[in-house]
Amino acid sequence: MKSHTYTLRVEFGDCDPAQIVWFPNFFRWVDAASRHFFVQCGLPDWKTTERERGILGTPLADTQAKFLRPASYGDVLQIESHVSEWRRRSFVMKHQIRRADVVLVEITEVRVFARRKGDGSDPHAIESVAVPEDWRAMCE
Amino acid sequence: MKSHTYTLRVEFGDCDPAQIVWFPNFFRWVDAASRHFFVQCGLPDWKTTERERGILGTPLADTQAKFLRPASYGDVLQIESHVSEWRRRSFVMKHQIRRADVVLVEITEVRVFARRKGDGSDPHAIESVAVPEDWRAMCE
Amino acid sequence: MKSHTYTLRVEFGDCDPAQIVWFPNFFRWVDAASRHFFVQCGLPDWKTTERERGILGTPLADTQAKFLRPASYGDVLQIESHVSEWRRRSFVMKHQIRRADVVLVEITEVRVFARRKGDGSDPHAIESVAVPEDWRAMCE
Amino acid sequence: MKSHTYTLRVEFGDCDPAQIVWFPNFFRWVDAASRHFFVQCGLPDWKTTERERGILGTPLADTQAKFLRPASYGDVLQIESHVSEWRRRSFVMKHQIRRADVVLVEITEVRVFARRKGDGSDPHAIESVAVPEDWRAMCE
Repeated sequence: MKSHTYTLRVEFGDCDPAQIVWFPNFFRWVDAASRHFFVQCGLPDWKTTERERGILGTPLADTQAKFLRPASYGDVLQIESHVSEWRRRSFVMKHQIRRADVVLVEITEVRVFARRKGDGSDPHAIESVAVPEDWRAMCE
Repeated sequence: MKSHTYTLRVEFGDCDPAQIVWFPNFFRWVDAASRHFFVQCGLPDWKTTERERGILGTPLADTQAKFLRPASYGDVLQIESHVSEWRRRSFVMKHQIRRADVVLVEITEVRVFARRKGDGSDPHAIESVAVPEDWRAMCE
Repeated sequence: MKSHTYTLRVEFGDCDPAQIVWFPNFFRWVDAASRHFFVQCGLPDWKTTERERGILGTPLADTQAKFLRPASYGDVLQIESHVSEWRRRSFVMKHQIRRADVVLVEITEVRVFARRKGDGSDPHAIESVAVPEDWRAMCE
Repeated sequence: MKSHTYTLRVEFGDCDPAQIVWFPNFFRWVDAASRHFFVQCGLPDWKTTERERGILGTPLADTQAKFLRPASYGDVLQIESHVSEWRRRSFVMKHQIRRADVVLVEITEVRVFARRKGDGSDPHAIESVAVPEDWRAMCE
């Protein structure tokens, strides 16, 4: 099972008046980690996939997050990401965010591969597609 | 049971290259909605509570989100927030994000009231406190 | 000369560990204020203009900002925006950010109306177009 | 004259519906680059300086930015930062943002070293201090 580790440094501006990472930034980082996972597995970027297959990305269907310990600026964090389950029209990603050996946050996501419906002019009109078999094979 | 409705307009910069709201922004907005709920119930702001009681805010312990439909810029959204359960050291908030009558996102949060441990110089050292009875009474 | 006032409330998460607004957020807000100015003058949104005229928005060419006083969460701010100068291929916008009568930030922007070059597949390939006469008339 | 180069990768969520970096993110990144410059020169982090000298960071007094070419996600950018001028109570930083050899953005900032006024309870009450001589010597 492939996994990818994404490393980042927490910046001053990522933190809130309590001096700790403001939690929406953790979701910003796992979104990047998710994309890097697919890039590392060899998938083209979403600009290319939209042109070639109409697939514009992997929007979230749902997510669960546990915040175990805070982080603050200057911290170096690592996010380890993998796909734990493939379904017909969606997949489950798990991300573990650590500072050295300490687990700070655990996030589980259900994502879909999505394309536009209709003529593409309505940004609200997107729909999931079946998980492409060749992409799944590249990520396993 | 008290609830609060927070209204916002989705901006161009809140959206990603797929032209829909980039999901970490939904967490940004529910964090604001959560704070507005407490302000509306009569709690002081976190600057005051930190000075008076050492309580610096309500960090998230965990969260679950369901993304049912996308939003795009120009949309006016409403977030209805309430506390669905009070525990001894934490509480559960529920947020429903709608565009007119259509539910787009449902988010459940477990939050704690937190203060610094030790002399306050280590931003990682925060801990939950028992839910203040007077505040709970103001929010019910 | 038309002007538009955009009102916003500073949130906890807009502030940094110094408890004041982290300055990139001021640029986030003036970007929204700029778009609201055009919407208020009657221009269609950028999705419509891209479809009808190929114009995808008003990217910044350059900007100058003076930060006179800080803001913090709970503050209600007003941004007054107008176009101070129209040029052939660009225009100058001025934004004044105030808390009640106190000016906090002054921002001057040079923006262009832009479209894609080539077949549209290279996101780096965008170019300015001449300011549309009908739009200028709507904004004066 | 010391300079520091900060490397970053543009992410999907850093881009707007025009598929290019939404400009407030450039300010986010130069803020990080500015902090890294001081860390690299040997200054302590702002948590330590606040405790030891009351100095809580380097808020912006004003900034000028030229946006020459857009960036999009997948791009690797480098920000080269240095202090071009030291004044008694402020200093000028210059940041050049490049993709390989191509200059995309040039930003000039006037920043101050700041501390709280009064008892520290009013987040709006901050003031500049004279540039510490020892820190200036470390950065030259």
